[in-house]
Amino acid sequence: MVTVNSIEELFEVTKLFNGSVGFVPTMGALHEGHLSLIQQARRENDFVVVSIFVNPTQFLEGEDLEAYPKKEKADAKICELAGVDILFIPTIEMMYERDELKITAPSIRGFILEGTKRPGHFDGMLQVVMKLLNLIAYNKPKSFRAYFGKKDAQQLVLITQMVKNYFINVEIIPCPIIRDSDGLALSSRNIYLSKEERVKALALSRSLKRASELVMQKEFDVSTIQKEMLKVLIEIEVEYVALVNHQFQALKYIELNNTIILVAGRVGRTRLIDNLWI
Amino acid sequence: MVTVNSIEELFEVTKLFNGSVGFVPTMGALHEGHLSLIQQARRENDFVVVSIFVNPTQFLEGEDLEAYPKKEKADAKICELAGVDILFIPTIEMMYERDELKITAPSIRGFILEGTKRPGHFDGMLQVVMKLLNLIAYNKPKSFRAYFGKKDAQQLVLITQMVKNYFINVEIIPCPIIRDSDGLALSSRNIYLSKEERVKALALSRSLKRASELVMQKEFDVSTIQKEMLKVLIEIEVEYVALVNHQFQALKYIELNNTIILVAGRVGRTRLIDNLWI
Repeated sequence: MVTVNSIEELFEVTKLFNGSVGFVPTMGALHEGHLSLIQQARRENDFVVVSIFVNPTQFLEGEDLEAYPKKEKADAKICELAGVDILFIPTIEMMYERDELKITAPSIRGFILEGTKRPGHFDGMLQVVMKLLNLIAYNKPKSFRAYFGKKDAQQLVLITQMVKNYFINVEIIPCPIIRDSDGLALSSRNIYLSKEERVKALALSRSLKRASELVMQKEFDVSTIQKEMLKVLIEIEVEYVALVNHQFQALKYIELNNTIILVAGRVGRTRLIDNLWI
Repeated sequence: MVTVNSIEELFEVTKLFNGSVGFVPTMGALHEGHLSLIQQARRENDFVVVSIFVNPTQFLEGEDLEAYPKKEKADAKICELAGVDILFIPTIEMMYERDELKITAPSIRGFILEGTKRPGHFDGMLQVVMKLLNLIAYNKPKSFRAYFGKKDAQQLVLITQMVKNYFINVEIIPCPIIRDSDGLALSSRNIYLSKEERVKALALSRSLKRASELVMQKEFDVSTIQKEMLKVLIEIEVEYVALVNHQFQALKYIELNNTIILVAGRVGRTRLIDNLWI
């Protein structure tokens, strides 16, 4: 594995790629969720690039930019063991200049749910993802795939739209949510949870399980499912329980193979999200 | 020459490009200015693509979108005679969906001069240029150059910045302003001018000539040069006379090889711009 800390060096090494490239962008603090993306990229491509960049433009004021967990040595070890070819760790100065062109999320899909709760977050996320996609594919690989977890469902849908709107030559690969044995969806922010909070947090995945049971019993009415989910979420400060189609349009009735059930809430000071694609 | 009216067809034909590609994006109504870009692209590349697309997102309300001159047959003939390989004429529906990701021009460079006079114009221009660059280079040409006239100086500077900010693999080639024998900079909008207005309009290029004479006489003070230019522009409804460096930062004193002198104004109902790079 080569660790690359400059764009010049990145362009030097990606010049040598003579096959397909799989790319996994991350903010570091890698866990089993990231590892599963890297492993899938490894299986499906000749070359694998992982980036670690805690992107300042997607954090809002008062969010945990400074406190965001950093584990550089452990991250590098995980990547090396997973057979990553290039670990790209740029600095903020390489990625941004002072007065930049910005990207704005689409006005409907970008400003509901997470977009309401974290205004500007998606703009910054899309900005850095476009930069990273263009950087990694700068030397025109034979084929190019980028891997994103379904956990950040709205992010995934917006990135897919960006690629379509701007005709970016990359295949976006949605990857399954990875959970701990108790059902909690993996997140770098889970380390903020105390033992008691972690137990409470399980209500998120339990509420999704409840929803899936209801659907299996042929309960397709969205407001009924929401009510039942909220019962399970009683101990959580719920931000939203939403059922949307894969284009993030609100649903009244479940559409099989075209529904995402989303839940977001706070446990103590920690904000958590989870979802289920059915 | 192949005329291409769909993105699928564009991807089919660009797949066959096995060399360098030169691209000239236009809004049609081609004149000698466009032709000089096309000829330069022809000299410098194995393959030449010209696009004609009157991009709605860069027109403001009340501007001449509907009335923008259309000359499809003449345009195609000009391209064919100039040795263009692909003439790409997409529809609005191919280029845009309903709820799109937008691009915002940088807050300083994008919102002075033309940015003030035409708020939102640059956002729409950058949006379509990014789409077009990605479309034409989708099949990863060996090398890729895009040709833009210096006449739209601020546009050129912003596109150059976009390419840098988003790491787009294209070389932006700035091309000289083409003028009629009387000095008027060529523009598709010149056809709106009456005979009398056209005579008045010559003050724009004359004011720039006056500025260049002053600089040759070692007059480097910007406010003096502006005053002298305004004397020449007496019969024009001037919008601005500005002297900036190549990064579009305002200057107090001329910097040789790093100054653009810009003038914008109205003659009758027609808005005209001109500039000089020294």
